[in-house]
Amino acid sequence: MKATLKDVAAEAGVTVTTVSRVLNNRGPISEKTRRKVYDAINKLDYRPNEAARSLGKKRTNVIGVIVPSIANPFFSELVNHLEAYAFSKGYHIELCNSYHEEYKEKEYLSLLQENRVAGIIISSRTEDIGKYLTDRLPVVSFERIINETTAAVTCDNYEGGKLATEHLLHCGCKHLAAFQIKSGVPMSADKRIDAFRDTCKANGIEFKIFQATESQFQSMRFQDFSMEILKKQKGIDGFFIPGDVAAIQFITACQKCGIRVPDEIQVVGFDDISMATWVHPQLTTIHQPIEQMSKIAVNTIIDFDPNSFIPLQSVLPVSLIERESTRSLT
Amino acid sequence: MKATLKDVAAEAGVTVTTVSRVLNNRGPISEKTRRKVYDAINKLDYRPNEAARSLGKKRTNVIGVIVPSIANPFFSELVNHLEAYAFSKGYHIELCNSYHEEYKEKEYLSLLQENRVAGIIISSRTEDIGKYLTDRLPVVSFERIINETTAAVTCDNYEGGKLATEHLLHCGCKHLAAFQIKSGVPMSADKRIDAFRDTCKANGIEFKIFQATESQFQSMRFQDFSMEILKKQKGIDGFFIPGDVAAIQFITACQKCGIRVPDEIQVVGFDDISMATWVHPQLTTIHQPIEQMSKIAVNTIIDFDPNSFIPLQSVLPVSLIERESTRSLT
Repeated sequence: MKATLKDVAAEAGVTVTTVSRVLNNRGPISEKTRRKVYDAINKLDYRPNEAARSLGKKRTNVIGVIVPSIANPFFSELVNHLEAYAFSKGYHIELCNSYHEEYKEKEYLSLLQENRVAGIIISSRTEDIGKYLTDRLPVVSFERIINETTAAVTCDNYEGGKLATEHLLHCGCKHLAAFQIKSGVPMSADKRIDAFRDTCKANGIEFKIFQATESQFQSMRFQDFSMEILKKQKGIDGFFIPGDVAAIQFITACQKCGIRVPDEIQVVGFDDISMATWVHPQLTTIHQPIEQMSKIAVNTIIDFDPNSFIPLQSVLPVSLIERESTRSLT
Repeated sequence: MKATLKDVAAEAGVTVTTVSRVLNNRGPISEKTRRKVYDAINKLDYRPNEAARSLGKKRTNVIGVIVPSIANPFFSELVNHLEAYAFSKGYHIELCNSYHEEYKEKEYLSLLQENRVAGIIISSRTEDIGKYLTDRLPVVSFERIINETTAAVTCDNYEGGKLATEHLLHCGCKHLAAFQIKSGVPMSADKRIDAFRDTCKANGIEFKIFQATESQFQSMRFQDFSMEILKKQKGIDGFFIPGDVAAIQFITACQKCGIRVPDEIQVVGFDDISMATWVHPQLTTIHQPIEQMSKIAVNTIIDFDPNSFIPLQSVLPVSLIERESTRSLT
């Protein structure tokens, strides 16, 4: 019989919460407690991801996926990976677009539960989501942190913002600016701009932050906004646009204004969607490992056992992909 | 009690097939027969789309959607419309990517039937699909014609190819070329190139057709292919690239080669995906009315009645959207 989270806690003489904290490497935990927990895990051969799927027979092999809009290339590429990996494991995807509308999320959440889905991957509005969920249904939030008891998969957004900003400095930029792309809800991606701000300050660099609106995020239209900024703001030579769809349109706006990229303005995006290589100049950007992130999200649902579930908050590393919209000083 | 297709046939004294042909306006039908059928329809107040949903209780409210890859922006925008309209009607989408792999299509087709979906919308490989389907499950093919007994929704691909070619001529182009984008299976979109060829011939214009491969279609990578063509072929001043993803990358290839669009080469795409407006120059293209096409596809499934089903083959009009990659002579 396989060990459960409770067995580990009992063996270590600590609470289940403490075991969860150790495994998530979260909160202040003494080295002594950490040692006890890992000793118990090793002794009992506890493997959370291989725990028996006690709900296997009661649930369908459908995974509900809620995204703001599948028309957004980041989410279409994400869902492409989710579907491919889920299929390889015998699972299928029910697709839900929320447009960040709370009523639509609520209706989908209750519908998916009625349909006895195996689990839900949500990358949409997440306020008060807990109200609509039972303890026995695995939910994974994607690029959104709901709370400590919900599993989450994100990329290292802060590190990505830091890499992007440092790269612009390394390319010789002296006056930086960034777009803050509001989706209407708190997102892990907000950390990209925190990192931009911190990195500028640490390097004593002047910077500006321009607020894009939720409606721009939803409609994916950033050109007029970009044109306005370019007309008013002179002297900025490096832009961090933390979303490739917006970054590509910002470069288009530069071209319309007769501003050469990267000669006069250098641009770094975020996401590394396919389109980043389809345009001229090709976009320098921060790569999110969405294939690996998708596998973790799907596995979290497939391996779910309500008796030993650990809401892991997985943060995956990002990398800078240098292309043509920036030019390193050598 | 509502009239069925059989009632109409009996009343008109013709076969069900003949009624279907009249309603589809397909095949040689005498005016006398046509009149008899319409008289019967009027007399019986037959309305195929309002027929009772006899299967309503036996089926789920899930519609299976099979596309080659949701990562392709055309399909992600299509699925976005399908989901939005289906949701408004109380239906939901199960998403299947086939990558044109026959084994994956087969597995999804049998799985969707086992799961008792309300119907299937398929825009993927379609050879021999009939083998895997029952008569009592509505199937709508999207931009693919399967056979006369399967409902289909396409845009007027031939007209689109004609509009694109005539526009290039109207813009003063003297030497035309087109990409033929093979997906590995016969597609309604092949008619775009038939129209290009016919229109060039009718106008006595020299033309070339370059064959893109299935692997380029699947990977959505068209830049190297475009570069090769641009290096070898001189003197072509107008390109019809019947897919926006390829057309955008062709323009990028022009820019890499120092060729100005539209000054030296003019380009017309096909589809009118959002991205056509995100790039510089913005892409002149043929607009497919995918929102209306999506509604027809979903309604065909929702309104399905096996006793009165007419496999309508709906062909929707397209339009030319002039942007910046061409320049009309005024």
